[in-house]
Amino acid sequence: MKKRPLILVTNDDGITAPGLRTLVKVMNKIGEVVVVAPDSPQSGMGHAITVDDTLYCKKEKIDNGPQTEYSTSGTPADCVKLAVNEILERKPDLCVSGINHGSNASINVIYSGTMSAAIEAGIEGIPSIGFSLSDYSWNVSFESCEKHVEHISRKVLEKSNKKNIILNVNFPKIRKGAKYKGVKITRQAKSYWKETFDKRENPNGKKYYWLTGEHINLDKGKDTDQSALKSGYISIVPIMYDMTSYSEIDEINKWNLNG
Amino acid sequence: MKKRPLILVTNDDGITAPGLRTLVKVMNKIGEVVVVAPDSPQSGMGHAITVDDTLYCKKEKIDNGPQTEYSTSGTPADCVKLAVNEILERKPDLCVSGINHGSNASINVIYSGTMSAAIEAGIEGIPSIGFSLSDYSWNVSFESCEKHVEHISRKVLEKSNKKNIILNVNFPKIRKGAKYKGVKITRQAKSYWKETFDKRENPNGKKYYWLTGEHINLDKGKDTDQSALKSGYISIVPIMYDMTSYSEIDEINKWNLNG
Repeated sequence: MKKRPLILVTNDDGITAPGLRTLVKVMNKIGEVVVVAPDSPQSGMGHAITVDDTLYCKKEKIDNGPQTEYSTSGTPADCVKLAVNEILERKPDLCVSGINHGSNASINVIYSGTMSAAIEAGIEGIPSIGFSLSDYSWNVSFESCEKHVEHISRKVLEKSNKKNIILNVNFPKIRKGAKYKGVKITRQAKSYWKETFDKRENPNGKKYYWLTGEHINLDKGKDTDQSALKSGYISIVPIMYDMTSYSEIDEINKWNLNG
Repeated sequence: MKKRPLILVTNDDGITAPGLRTLVKVMNKIGEVVVVAPDSPQSGMGHAITVDDTLYCKKEKIDNGPQTEYSTSGTPADCVKLAVNEILERKPDLCVSGINHGSNASINVIYSGTMSAAIEAGIEGIPSIGFSLSDYSWNVSFESCEKHVEHISRKVLEKSNKKNIILNVNFPKIRKGAKYKGVKITRQAKSYWKETFDKRENPNGKKYYWLTGEHINLDKGKDTDQSALKSGYISIVPIMYDMTSYSEIDEINKWNLNG
């Protein structure tokens, strides 16, 4: 019999988040599951790693499933590094991160702890998938996502052939009982957050701010993640971590930056 | 007379770091300078933003220069958001971040707070440059960088024409009094960090880890940032924040992820 795949599960909402518990349930059908996830929410952590502080790691027993679980005091990227280099005895066949409570489409991929874990796994040569649901509610039902999470994960295990494939999978918000229109392979929409800072005063009279913002989509393309989600499709963007803007190299070469 | 350019200066090593003080000194020759920088070191923060916590911001007077300065309790990306949306009366003409104490070449761009500030400025439509020196020493001399920082910044102001150009500029480590070989426009080398976790026990017997690692360059290309630095050249990589792996879209479309 072929060995069951080893699957690393993590997220940025913390080890007890309903989205992660859904992933664990689904992954238990597919392979041997090890969870290494933050002990508390780490949203907006981007690709942060803990370089100047200690990292704690604790074995956990959260439900009666067959998986092994650890919580850490670190960021999502720390969790992957700790799993791969310290906890796991062999390199996982797949890393899944999420299911995030909230969209990681378009520019959100840059700020996302969920995606930073998936990208970190990709950097380490592990096929990986970040899953997110476009609904920030903590008690949202992930039921409609489950069969898609299973299918996409099985396909990546079958097709990725150990290449460092990284997928950013976003589920649109749909009504209870409704179905997704299908799956679209898309590109990251060009967008940004227009921030407003809510200025307040603490009980000692010291001013502070809360960051709030509005997401502005600058991209009218029909091939984007935002467009797919808006039409009720599951969006899948293949991700890479080479941030070189190749198309600008020739122009900048003409700028005479040598002085 | 033409209005002097407005220049936002930030970093991830904190407002008192020698690398930032060097940037302030050089930028004062070029334009009107506003510093908005973290009140404490934020290395390895990636593109983290503060979504679930309060942000403090305090006016500072650190030296006798003409610049205006603020320290914040936030990350480098927070500093840029706060500057652009709350502190500055108009959009800056340029954002410079650094000079970082340590390299941000190759995969380090992903983990770098210095670069996250530059990228955040780029997302907000501001031409920006992250500067880093491949030397982690706090008391390193930035003198040899100064004229290049000035030249590159002036050129970006002149040439970028309000486009959201983002440059990742890395200086190699050179001997005191030595000169850089020149400037090369390069691409991000494919590399990763091979981590080892230093396992220790705290005074109460609780185990913890320190993240340590070795940088592994997988890329033999002569056109990479690592190659330029190794040969004594200043490396400049133009950066973009669209993380879509366009070359994989066709293949993944054949995977039948629809189920």
